[in-house]
Order: sequence, then structure tokens, then C-alpha cells
Amino acid sequence: MTMHYPLLVSNILNRARTAFADKEIITRTEDGTHRYTYKDMGARVNRLANALSALGVKKGDRVGTFGWNTYRHLEAYFASPIMGAVNHTINIRLFPDDLVYIINHAEDKVVLVDPDLVPILEPLAPQMESVEHFIIMSDDPEPATTLPGALCYETLLAQASDEFTQPEMDEYDPAGLCYTSATTGRPKGVTYTHRALYLHSMAECMADTSAFSERDTTMAMVPMFHANCWGFPYSSTMVGANQVMPGVRPDPQAICELFEEHKVTLTAGVPTIWVGVLDYLDRSGKTYDFSSLRAVISGGSAVPVSVIRAYKEKLGVDLVHAYGMTEATPIVTYNRVKTHLEGLPEDEKYELAGSQGLVVAGLEMRLVDENGEDLPWDGEQRGELLFRGPWVAREYYNDERTAETYIDGWYHSGDIASVNPDGYIQIGDRVKDMVKSGGEWISSVDLETAIIAHPDVLEAAVIAIPHPTWVERPLACVVPREDARDSLDRAQVMDFIRDKFARWWLPDDVVFIDEIPKTSVGKFDKKVLRDRYQDYVVGG
Amino acid sequence: MTMHYPLLVSNILNRARTAFADKEIITRTEDGTHRYTYKDMGARVNRLANALSALGVKKGDRVGTFGWNTYRHLEAYFASPIMGAVNHTINIRLFPDDLVYIINHAEDKVVLVDPDLVPILEPLAPQMESVEHFIIMSDDPEPATTLPGALCYETLLAQASDEFTQPEMDEYDPAGLCYTSATTGRPKGVTYTHRALYLHSMAECMADTSAFSERDTTMAMVPMFHANCWGFPYSSTMVGANQVMPGVRPDPQAICELFEEHKVTLTAGVPTIWVGVLDYLDRSGKTYDFSSLRAVISGGSAVPVSVIRAYKEKLGVDLVHAYGMTEATPIVTYNRVKTHLEGLPEDEKYELAGSQGLVVAGLEMRLVDENGEDLPWDGEQRGELLFRGPWVAREYYNDERTAETYIDGWYHSGDIASVNPDGYIQIGDRVKDMVKSGGEWISSVDLETAIIAHPDVLEAAVIAIPHPTWVERPLACVVPREDARDSLDRAQVMDFIRDKFARWWLPDDVVFIDEIPKTSVGKFDKKVLRDRYQDYVVGG
Repeated sequence: MTMHYPLLVSNILNRARTAFADKEIITRTEDGTHRYTYKDMGARVNRLANALSALGVKKGDRVGTFGWNTYRHLEAYFASPIMGAVNHTINIRLFPDDLVYIINHAEDKVVLVDPDLVPILEPLAPQMESVEHFIIMSDDPEPATTLPGALCYETLLAQASDEFTQPEMDEYDPAGLCYTSATTGRPKGVTYTHRALYLHSMAECMADTSAFSERDTTMAMVPMFHANCWGFPYSSTMVGANQVMPGVRPDPQAICELFEEHKVTLTAGVPTIWVGVLDYLDRSGKTYDFSSLRAVISGGSAVPVSVIRAYKEKLGVDLVHAYGMTEATPIVTYNRVKTHLEGLPEDEKYELAGSQGLVVAGLEMRLVDENGEDLPWDGEQRGELLFRGPWVAREYYNDERTAETYIDGWYHSGDIASVNPDGYIQIGDRVKDMVKSGGEWISSVDLETAIIAHPDVLEAAVIAIPHPTWVERPLACVVPREDARDSLDRAQVMDFIRDKFARWWLPDDVVFIDEIPKTSVGKFDKKVLRDRYQDYVVGG
Repeated sequence: MTMHYPLLVSNILNRARTAFADKEIITRTEDGTHRYTYKDMGARVNRLANALSALGVKKGDRVGTFGWNTYRHLEAYFASPIMGAVNHTINIRLFPDDLVYIINHAEDKVVLVDPDLVPILEPLAPQMESVEHFIIMSDDPEPATTLPGALCYETLLAQASDEFTQPEMDEYDPAGLCYTSATTGRPKGVTYTHRALYLHSMAECMADTSAFSERDTTMAMVPMFHANCWGFPYSSTMVGANQVMPGVRPDPQAICELFEEHKVTLTAGVPTIWVGVLDYLDRSGKTYDFSSLRAVISGGSAVPVSVIRAYKEKLGVDLVHAYGMTEATPIVTYNRVKTHLEGLPEDEKYELAGSQGLVVAGLEMRLVDENGEDLPWDGEQRGELLFRGPWVAREYYNDERTAETYIDGWYHSGDIASVNPDGYIQIGDRVKDMVKSGGEWISSVDLETAIIAHPDVLEAAVIAIPHPTWVERPLACVVPREDARDSLDRAQVMDFIRDKFARWWLPDDVVFIDEIPKTSVGKFDKKVLRDRYQDYVVGG
């Protein structure tokens, strides 16, 4: 029989600190660059683990982080798990009441905070009942703050030993925690086991997934408070890749400079980032050497094919579509062209690249209709995607809403998609964003895509409004371009899309608004719009 | 928390049959080529599982295989595990009494046999107490054989359903079994869990290991009866690679033709195979297009640097050194050049390529002295290699010798090596092949390497013989080249190596023999030589 050898986060770090001791972690700081090696990092992770122990953090306790992508944040990613505590990454862009909610719900005992984010927490601290210490991630031995029990990160590390003996652990012990926004109500917490984080890293290092390698210099643009930073900290460390940390508020110029200076090979972020980089390059007229980049991973929401094309044609870079969610650690798909599709005409290849790609090895997928019956993978029929596998959560942390999402052992993603015979997923709407009119589904995304093609439209969101006969009907919320604010009207919008849809798909009305409300991670917040227009009367 | 989702062999196949349904398995047959797809294979694996169930095979039962690398053998690799049975691959080159021993020890209930190997088993069958059925892997509905209860593979499959429902299984359930030769006594069995086979496959698919990809066409030259065929069947299937099966007794010409015809990208085998291919090319003067080959993996024993160089310089192919053992599923190391070593002079790079490389992600290594104390990784000090990890065995199957090898949770490899500061392993001797003279170790491999450099020497093995004062002393067993049989003498050999070693390292004597005895997998069988010369008296 095989050894009962647990899959632990500590093993990931131990490999890097021994076999790749001299590879580097490079952080963009306020006044330059901070560099150190995995060997240095390993010693500091031990110091942090000892310091947290000394503060009374015990196995199973949650340790919050509230910070940017830096080497200190990376240390927290390892220190909490190796001591049996839980690394709870907190979204720095949450609204104040959600912040208070999740820190209380997680019962964080200690919270690590970046200095420039301290002012966000200060007014809220009195409401955070469980937090015994705030640790300011800076060199300042006496940080000026009203946060109660505030301590200096570097002072704590300097006082601690760099030897740490890991307690006995099971691979099903919790190692990480991250909250995800919910359609209704407060954010929901997802706990990650050591096993999930380990297997997720192996999957990302596979040649047909993102293929992390010792040869890489990786730089996650996705924030470290977002779904394990899409696995970058753990996967990069597992293989001993160099890691670049973009630090505080990296703007497109900083991103381009970091790519070039450190010869970054692999990066990842939401489409907004990549559109921002393109836009910056256009506006500034500057050019950079991106020849080291082997892949720019885009996820979080669908990336337009035009952006994929622009990256390839203007920058010579492969922008790769991936798909996942907080509940799946997060990676679910990665877009690679199968060998037999390599001969496709260029346009079709770009279309394919615009899909979410193939489910990665390790996970199982189903496509089901409203009754939970399996649908064929024919590229036509749309259903909800269900997933299961060794790095998919089975519940929300202490949350009754678990029952809505985890049914019969499958995670119900809420994403509506078709799957083609090759297994490529094409996601349309979220289930909650579909308009259910007279028992039939209308895709809000399809309508939005059509409306946004109008030259005078900047943004558009289609939502469901209640209707006495049809239960729901679509309402288009449109943001005109600056110079069309006074001219664009309902008839122009409706005329523009009339030929493209069946008549019953067309929105009952068009409302003009100044901007589409966004969630803390930059996605359309249709919940706000639905609340705003819940009593809307067409023509009223 | 994360789902309790077991890592099972069935998941490997299910991915290929759905996402890569049309990728191919291509087998060299007696009269040509057999081709089918993963979709076909999936249906036939189900048929085989149903057929075995109908024959009374139950969860935990062992199903033996005695065959070449073919699609039917591949089916057995999956059918037994998916029904909860154990795929016991039997070495077709074992001596008859070892064959009887392991089949009885494993208590195989059914044995699948290739038609041309039936004559090996026929005379032994009466001694095989547990075997209820021999299944002949051919189309012949009434195979002519004296094997009791013989059945036709294709008839059984034709009668079975292609739908199979997998029973509930745990990832620690046994899925595979393979026996390895022992220094003393009968072969020892190693059981593989589903978990071990699954994680081993993920590890092999990682970019910095063998990087199995859907883009690959793989062909294992290592036999399927040898340590899970080094993972090729499972890793190739996990990613949906095309697989070429070289069939019955592939010779160097067949190998070269298969590489070229099927555009093989990744292959693996023992050095003897690769030396044989080189030799065939030299002798025949033929040339083949090997441009598709991205790596030729060599393992099982050390490959000379000269062979690595010849592959690169003559064929343009990377011959990659890997290291492992039956007890480790088998992969332990894979040789990749770290980025910071890419600038080394060519000779040093070849030397590095001749080492066993780096421990793959997932496993842990120690280098220890005779007292079990850790030695530094300085590239100088030699000790025994210990390993542990999620695909390393923790025992031999029903075997008291477990206690000699598995100590304090570590597998004691018996391999003596140094490890350089970069983590590259350089293996010298097996512990059992070291000569312990007056409390000091003498490396038999170092002496052999020196002796074999003599132009009149074909092969050389150095063994320990008992000595009243020094406990052990080295004896050189030398096979002269054909044309030097009458001329080469003791003094020439001793003079040739005298300057290269400390005086006490020099062999006490040289004996000339016709050939070095080999084990069934082609390694030097020093056990036979030690037995032969146990009473040897120097100068006697």
C-alpha cells in the first residue's frame, strides 16, 4: 500500500526553499524594489508562524489579511497554513458593512493590514469583536494608528525564531478562507483545505493548464485577496518560479514596466486590467518589450474576442481565457487549442479563444436543464454548469445558503452555458441574470452585447422586472456615451436591435442611467438595478 | 470545506472518453496496425470490467496480466481498477519458479495472457492454485491451449455490456500490484492505491516533469509489466494524448519506424533500448525522421553521458534521465536544466544531464549516513537516499521484508548518491553493491567504470568477497572483448586502474568470465556472482 502522506501547503514551500533556494520574489515598493529568495522567505515564514503562535493563534484560528500583492502578503499565505491556522484573505474593496460582517463571521483573531489601508479599518475596528491584534505590515516599529492592539510586522518577525516545527496535520484541515459576494444577502465564505490548495497547484502546473515552471517569472495582477490569487502564490512556489509582486495600486504603466524589467512570462487578471493596458499603450504611444510573456491569463468575466485579437496582433501575446470561481479554489477551465483544431481559419480560432475553454484535469462537469437532466454537448443547448472535484468546496462556511448551491454532491455554478462536442464551454448568463418570460428564458447577455454595439452606447445592462402576465420581462439600462447624452433615445436603441431577436425577446423598455453599478470586483451589480426598478411600470 | 472527492483511476479514463473521445490508441500488431479511439476504448474497458465481474472477480481481487504493450493490456490497466479489482502486471521475463511464486503469492484469480506467451505459462499452470481462468488476449474463439479454464478475450467482451457502474470506492483502495526483484529471496510485491496512481499521473503531467500533453503522441518502450509502465498509460490518458503501443518484441528497426510513422513526441525505456537503437542506426546506415520527438526518457539504470551526447549530436533528440523504482510508482526524479545553469559549458551540461536530476514536486528526499544522520547536499558526500511522499509505498505486500526497507515513515532506497547544492542527484552504487572494507566504503561502480574504459574490456562487475581481516574486499569480474579473450590478463587490468584509486580501493584479484549474469530487467545480477565467489581465495 501507499504511504498515508498528507498533501500540505508546507510541502509546497519546503520544496522551493531547498531545491530552488536562490530563486527570487521581487516586490514593487513605494520607493523601488524589494528582492529576496525562497530561502529568505522560508525563514521569514517560520518567524511569522512563531510570532502568530506567540500572539495566541492556535490550530483552526482565522488570520485575516488586508493587503496588496507583496512579499509580506505571500508570507501570510504560507505562515497561517503551516501552523494549522487559516489564511483569510479579505477583499480591500468591500463596502464597510460587508467588511465588518465577514471579519466578525470569520471570527478573525488577528488581521494583517497594509499601512495605506489602515484608515479603512480604523473606524470599523470597534465593531470587530473577535480581532485581538492588528499587525501593520511595515517597518515602522510604532505605527501611528487608532487600531487597538496594533503591532509592527517587522518587529514581530525580528523577535521570533526562524525555526518552526509544524504540528501534526491532516490534508482535510482548513488552510484558507475567502468570501464571495452573493446575489442576495451578505458575502459567503469558502474554506479551502490543504488538500484542495495542493491539488489545485498541481493542476495549474500541468502542461495543458497554465504550466507553471521553474523557467517562469510570474506576476499575478489578480489581487491576493481574490480567490487565492488564482493559485499564483502556491503554484509558482511549488515549481520554484520567480515571482513578481506588483505592490500598491499598480496602474497600467507600472504593469508594463514590470513586465519588461523583470521579463515576466506568465500573468493573470480580470479583463478590465488587460483592456486598461491596451488603452494605456494606445494613449501613451509608448512601446515595451513583452517578448518574455508566454501567456496573459484573463478570467473573472468574459473577455471580448476583440481584446484577444488585439493582444495577439498588436503585442504578439497570447491572451488566454480561463474560468473559475471562489468556490473552486478557483480554477475550473483553461483555454487551449486542441491539436485537431489548429487548422481552423483564424476567425474561428479567435472565436474559440473567446470561449471559456476545457475543464482542467481533475474536475468533472455536467450541463443540466432546469429539471437537473443532462443536456447534450452540442454547442447549442444551454443549461446550467455543475462541477465537482477535489478542489471544489462542498459548503459555505457556517452559512445556511449552502443548501441552495450544493445539491447531491455537485456545485451548482449558476452559470448558463453551452458546451460544444469538443468540451469547450461558452458561458452566457448567470442563472440569476436570465429573464424568465412566460416560462421561456431570455438571455440578458445577448441583449446587452447587441445594445452595446450601438456607437452611442457606452455600457448596457439588461435586467428582469416583474410583470403580471409573463412573470418577468427584460428592461434595458443604458449608459450613453458622453457626447450622446442628450441625443440617444429609446427608439434608436430598439430600432438598432429589433432585427436581431425574436419579438418577445425585445426589452419592454429602455432607461438611461449615468453608470452601471459595479461590485467590489468590478462586475455589473445587477442586484442594485433590480432593486431600483422592482416597481418599474413600462411607459409609467 | 472542500468536497471529499476521491482520486480514482476511473476519473482518468472518464476525462479522455469525453473530452478527447476521438484521440487514438495505435497498436503495432503481427500483421499491421490496430487503431481505435478513447471512446472505443472506454466502451471496451466497461465490457472487460463486466466480463471479469461475471467470472466472479470481486473488489480487492487480483487480476494478473502477462503480456506485451498493446491496447488490450491498456484496457486491463483500467478495467480492474474501475471495478475495484487490482491490476497485477506480471513480468514475462521472470524465471519459472518466480512466476509461480508471485502468481500464488498475489493469489491472482484471473490471468490475461498474450497468445505467444501462453507456452510459458502452460507447464506452470498446475502449480498456480488461485487462478480460476486464463483469458487469452486474442480473437481466436477457441484458443488451443492446455491452460485450464482458458477463455477468449474478444468473445468475453462481445458478450458483455458496454455500460458499467463503478462501485463506491476510496482513493486508498488498491488498484495495482507489481513485483520487484529482491537482493535476497523471492520478488517483493508493491501495491498501488488509486490515490498513488492518480497523483503520480498529475506529477508526470506537470510542465517541469515529463509534461504529458494532449499535443503528445506517446510510446512507452518500457514494458507494461514494469512498474506501471512508468506511468505512461495513465498519464497519457489523463491528458488525452495519442498513444502508440509497440506490441510484440519490438526491435530497434520497429521502434524507429514507429517513431517516424506516428510522429511520436515522447517515449521512455531503459538504456539498453536506446543503445540498441543507436547501434541499429550505425549498423544499418538507415535514417529516419525523428523531428517529432521532444524527449526520450531513459531510466532503470544510469545512462552513459556518451549516449546522451550521441542522441543530441547525431539525432537531434534530448535523451532525458529519470530515476525511480517499483516502490515509487515509479517516478522520483526527472532531469531538467535549471534556468541558472543554462549558461554552463557544453561538457558540464552533458555531465549534469547524466545525473539523475531533481526530485519531482510532491516527493521528499533525505541523504543520510550509515547512522541515519542527514548529510549536506554538497555534491561530495555520499549517503543513502530516502524518500517519502503520496505515491511511495509504505510496505511490501504481505512480506516480512517490509521492515528492512520502510523505517520511520521513510522508504530506504538502498541507492548511494551525492546531491549537489542545486538538488541534482548523482547515484553511485546500490548499498548492497558497496564493498565495506575495514569499516570504509569502496564504490564498486567507480571501479567498474574505470575497468570498462580499458579497450580490451567488454563488461566488468566488482563484487565484495569475504575477508578474514577486512570483512570484505573487492573482486573484479571481467568479460574481455571477443578478440582479447586470450590476451587480457590480471596485470593489464590492475596496471590500467592503479593510478586512479587509493591503494586499499584496488581489487584483491581479477577473474575473467564469459558474461555478467543479468536480472530479468537486464541489470547486473551481482547476487549470482557473490554466490559464485563466496569462497573465493585470492591467488587460490
